[in-house]
Amino acid sequence: MNTYLECIPCFFRQALFAARAATRDERQMKQVLDKVSALVPGIPLDSPPPETARWIYSVVREVTGVADPFRAHKEESIQKALSLYGMCKSAVDHSEDPLRTAVRMAIAGNAIDLGANPDLDLEGEMRNILRGDLPENPYQAFKRSLEGTRTLLYLGDNAGETVFDRILIEVMGKDTVYAVRDVPIINDVTVEDALKSGLGGVARIVSSGCDAPGTILRRCSEEFLSLFASADLIVSKGQGNFESLSGEDAPIFFLLRVKCPVIAGHLGAQNGDMILKNGRERQISSSV
Amino acid sequence: MNTYLECIPCFFRQALFAARAATRDERQMKQVLDKVSALVPGIPLDSPPPETARWIYSVVREVTGVADPFRAHKEESIQKALSLYGMCKSAVDHSEDPLRTAVRMAIAGNAIDLGANPDLDLEGEMRNILRGDLPENPYQAFKRSLEGTRTLLYLGDNAGETVFDRILIEVMGKDTVYAVRDVPIINDVTVEDALKSGLGGVARIVSSGCDAPGTILRRCSEEFLSLFASADLIVSKGQGNFESLSGEDAPIFFLLRVKCPVIAGHLGAQNGDMILKNGRERQISSSV
Repeated sequence: MNTYLECIPCFFRQALFAARAATRDERQMKQVLDKVSALVPGIPLDSPPPETARWIYSVVREVTGVADPFRAHKEESIQKALSLYGMCKSAVDHSEDPLRTAVRMAIAGNAIDLGANPDLDLEGEMRNILRGDLPENPYQAFKRSLEGTRTLLYLGDNAGETVFDRILIEVMGKDTVYAVRDVPIINDVTVEDALKSGLGGVARIVSSGCDAPGTILRRCSEEFLSLFASADLIVSKGQGNFESLSGEDAPIFFLLRVKCPVIAGHLGAQNGDMILKNGRERQISSSV
Repeated sequence: MNTYLECIPCFFRQALFAARAATRDERQMKQVLDKVSALVPGIPLDSPPPETARWIYSVVREVTGVADPFRAHKEESIQKALSLYGMCKSAVDHSEDPLRTAVRMAIAGNAIDLGANPDLDLEGEMRNILRGDLPENPYQAFKRSLEGTRTLLYLGDNAGETVFDRILIEVMGKDTVYAVRDVPIINDVTVEDALKSGLGGVARIVSSGCDAPGTILRRCSEEFLSLFASADLIVSKGQGNFESLSGEDAPIFFLLRVKCPVIAGHLGAQNGDMILKNGRERQISSSV
């Protein structure tokens, strides 16, 4: 997916949000915004938004000297999600169709997103998941793909929703590699966060090699590219991964919450919609 | 009021919104954003936001060649408001306290604001006005000020709410000068819009001389400054006028809807609140 002009004001919003998390020095925050301004004429509109977001967060790091401004927030998100793990796991296990419930839960958990959705009531979100349902066609396609799958590559997104990814991975019961960001960026999951979320017991955790808040293949490691090429099924979580992989010809299913009007417009969906999208079909399906 | 760092992403949002209204050429829109970027390091944070907004809209004019991108929208807002005039006037006349109702209506009408509030259901807004009430102290202070007033200066804000300003001016029944922007900027009221709203019959319409979406005194005409200095009472509508005049020592009452988190934070209010604020008192009063 290309970068839309509407992403540009949002880059400034994100830059300021991250700068505020990193420092209390208003001059440093202004310096971040000045440096982001200097990037604008060169923003590659034919690249996905995570390409530019990568630059922006590097500006925040450079100006403030803080490498991981959302570290405490990520820790808190993971702890909160872990506190819901037992209840959620039990709800999945006792549901009529555990896979369907776990997919919905994993999508609902994607509401945790500091880039696009800084204010969130996680418990409220998780309680709401039973309201909507998944559209039948993409869910059946996902189920069929899963049946023929031996090796599954799961692309994580935000720290915290990782706990709900873990439940889905447990339910799917496949030989799974869980890919994470190479370095801390926004509240995206790193190896450390994945381990804290208990994913080490259910999947092999690898870095994608990418330092953007998405999965930009030309920035990924050889190891990851090889996993990407050989996986029977790829489960891609969140907007950043969708933005960077939506054009790829690969056996991907995208699981995400729509959290910005640009993605909503691109998908023909509404803000807040839960999306399960077969990457190989043009068809888009959403439920609230 | 100074410019906050949070205003900077919003300047980009406004620039793009205005550029989209002026042109369909995406390259021109990007050019607008590039030029706005070049302004960022020089944004005077010790000036009110309308000072920078003035620059931004001049960039849109310069790049697109369109002087008044919201002309049609303003016309539509005025016609829609005029269609509600009879019903609203009658509601005021038949209310227990016509002045109070007219003040609430004038504040409710301030929801019309393309800069801060592009999507609006005007009829819904006007129906909602009877839900909240005005806080007693500033209303009584306003009423007392009005009793001693011979010459009243009314600072207009957006085209459309002008019709509700007209109702308030009719109810107040004072010798009134209605001040408007010198040139089209966003959907702010100009002489032409004021006349279309029927204000010519109830007030003398003058330009403030200011080409910003607010009333920046050092950019106003001599004629306006003389009116400002001699008025017994100044009624200031909207955020832009509040932002540019909140520090002035003058007999001003600010009537506005809170339409952005920065103003909400500055006033200790909530987004959407109706504000009637005595400019000479620190006290802030709001009702929803």
